[in-house]
Amino acid sequence: MSERDDTRVIGIDLGGTSVRTAVVNAQGRMLARDQGITPAREGSDAIVKSVLGSVGRVLEKPHMAASDLGAVGLACAGLSNPETGILYTSPNLPGLKDVPLAGLIENELGKKVFLMNDANAAAVGEMHLGAARGARNFVYITLSTGIGAGVVIDGKIYTGSTGFASEPGHMVIDDEGPVCYCGSRGCWETLASGTALAKYARQRIEEGRKTSILDYAGGDAEKVRAEDVHQAAQTGDTLAKEVIARTAYYVGVGLANLINIFNPELIVIGGGLTNIGDMLLEPAYEEAKRRAFPQTYQAVRFARAELGDDSGLLGAALFVLGEMGRLGGLLRP
Amino acid sequence: MSERDDTRVIGIDLGGTSVRTAVVNAQGRMLARDQGITPAREGSDAIVKSVLGSVGRVLEKPHMAASDLGAVGLACAGLSNPETGILYTSPNLPGLKDVPLAGLIENELGKKVFLMNDANAAAVGEMHLGAARGARNFVYITLSTGIGAGVVIDGKIYTGSTGFASEPGHMVIDDEGPVCYCGSRGCWETLASGTALAKYARQRIEEGRKTSILDYAGGDAEKVRAEDVHQAAQTGDTLAKEVIARTAYYVGVGLANLINIFNPELIVIGGGLTNIGDMLLEPAYEEAKRRAFPQTYQAVRFARAELGDDSGLLGAALFVLGEMGRLGGLLRP
Repeated sequence: MSERDDTRVIGIDLGGTSVRTAVVNAQGRMLARDQGITPAREGSDAIVKSVLGSVGRVLEKPHMAASDLGAVGLACAGLSNPETGILYTSPNLPGLKDVPLAGLIENELGKKVFLMNDANAAAVGEMHLGAARGARNFVYITLSTGIGAGVVIDGKIYTGSTGFASEPGHMVIDDEGPVCYCGSRGCWETLASGTALAKYARQRIEEGRKTSILDYAGGDAEKVRAEDVHQAAQTGDTLAKEVIARTAYYVGVGLANLINIFNPELIVIGGGLTNIGDMLLEPAYEEAKRRAFPQTYQAVRFARAELGDDSGLLGAALFVLGEMGRLGGLLRP
Repeated sequence: MSERDDTRVIGIDLGGTSVRTAVVNAQGRMLARDQGITPAREGSDAIVKSVLGSVGRVLEKPHMAASDLGAVGLACAGLSNPETGILYTSPNLPGLKDVPLAGLIENELGKKVFLMNDANAAAVGEMHLGAARGARNFVYITLSTGIGAGVVIDGKIYTGSTGFASEPGHMVIDDEGPVCYCGSRGCWETLASGTALAKYARQRIEEGRKTSILDYAGGDAEKVRAEDVHQAAQTGDTLAKEVIARTAYYVGVGLANLINIFNPELIVIGGGLTNIGDMLLEPAYEEAKRRAFPQTYQAVRFARAELGDDSGLLGAALFVLGEMGRLGGLLRP
C-alpha cells in the first residue's frame, strides 16, 4: 500500500455575491470550508481583503494550519490569463479591471496562486470527480445568469493563446438579437440564459399575458425569476411552458454550434437553469439534433453536471493538485 | 551537414470537379503533379478509379517510381474519420456515403493512405509552409463555395472525438436565416460564402435593382458569380459594393464567434472570396472587433492564406510527412 499523500490545497470561488473557500486534500475531499461576502462594487484592495479573510477563517479550523498548504486555486468569472494571473474583466466584479489578482493574493499568503476562469475550473472538477470522468474531449457549459463554458481537449483544459478561450456564451446565434453587455448582439447568453428566460417572461407579462407566474413572484412582474417560471410550468401554466420552450430552442441552437465546432464526445450541462430539468433539456437536445450534422450529433452524449455549486471551488483545487502532479488517488465524493 | 532525406509522399486533393495529385519530397517541394476529372455524381468505384488514374499518371513522370513512396495523404471536403479512413459525407461528392475511402485506395496502391478533411489539410499546409509558420494556436478558414476550417491547437490539427470537428461553416449565426443544405438554418456559410454573396446579388437584381454586375455575367442574372460582383464593385457599382459590405458583415460576425471561442493568436483566411481583398476583409475585421471581447480581439492577428489552390494538396502531403516524422528540413516554396 502506498503512503498516504498529505498534500492539501486551497480552492477559492470568487463570485459576485460571495467568496467561497475550501481546503481540499489530494484525495479530492473538502476538509474545511468557509463563505464570505464579496464587495463586488469595490476595488481590488477590498476584494483581496475579503478573499484573505475567507482563507484566514478556513485555516483557523482544526488541523488546517497554513504550513500544510501546497498552493491555491482561484476561480473567477471573466477574462483572465492563467499564465500571468491577471484578471482583465469580470461581469460579476465591475470594480476589477486589469488587476494582477493572483499576484496580490500570492504576496499576502506566501503561496503560489493559480487564477482561472470559473467555468474552466468547473470543467476540471467535472473531469476528475463529476460527470466527465474518463472523457478526453468534452465541453462543459453552465446555464446560469450568463452562460459559461470550459472546453477540455485531450484531457487538458483549453485556454487559448492568452487564456480567454471558451466563451460560447458570447457566440452570436442571432446577429440582430438582443444587445449584450459585452457590446455585441444576439450572443447565446442573451437568448438562452436564466436572465434571458426571466426577461422574456417579464416582457410577455407586461404585454398583458395571463399567467400564474406572477403568483410565484409576489405579484410583481419586475421580480420574476427563472425559478418562478419553472414553478408555474410545473402546474401547467401556458406562458411558463412557452417561455421554457423558447429558451430550450435557443439552448439547442448553441449546442448544435458547439457540436459542429468541437465534435465532443460529451457535453456536460450545469448551472441553475438545469433545475428545470427535462422540460428544458429534452427539447434543447432535439433542436441540437435538427441543426447539427447527424454524424457529429450521434458522436456526442449529454450529461448533467454532478458537482453542483461546488464545481468551481473543487475544480480550482483539483486544477492545482494536477499542476502539482498529485492527482493519483482521487476518491469520488 | 545531415544526409539528404529522400522520402517522397503523395498528396491528393479530391474535389467536386477535379482530383489533383502531387509527389512531394521531405523538403516540402512538389516534384511532379497531375490533374484529373472527378466523376462527382458517381459512386465510390468510379471515384477511386479516377484517383488511381491521377496517381498512376503522376508516378509515370520521370524519376517518380512508386517504390520510392512513403505514404499518401488524401484531402477531401466533408466529414471523415482520420482514424478509420471512412468518408461519411461530402458536399462535393454526393455519390459517396459511409465509404472506407482510404482503405479502398490503400488496397490498390499498397501504401498507407491518410484521409483528412480538405480544410484541415490546408491548415497543416499553412502551418508548415504558409501564413501560419510559427503559430501554435490558430484557425484557418476558407471562404469559398462554402466555408471550411481547420483549427490548430498546440501545433496539432484538432479533429475532435470522431474526426468531424471544425465545421464553423455550419455554426448558426442567424437562427432564422436561410435554409442550409445541412438541414439547419442561418449557418455561417449560408450568409458569408461566395455562394451566399452571389445569391444575394441575384436576388437584388431580380428585384429590379440597376447594376453593372449583369454586364460581367453576360446579361444573365442566373449566371452571376462572386467574381462578377467583385469586378462591378471595382468600377464603383453601388449594388456590388452593398453586396460585398453585407457579406463582409457576416464574415465578421463569424470571425467574432471564432475569436471568443478559440482565442487564437492568428486567423488565416483563404479561399476564392478573399480575391476581393481589403474591400471585403477590412470591414469584416471591423465587425469582428465590434463583436468580440476587446481583449480577445487584441490577441489575434489576421493573415491571408499563402498557399492558394495548392494548400490542400500540399497540406495532405505535409501531414503525412509529419506522421512519418520527416518534417525536419522544410524549405519555403
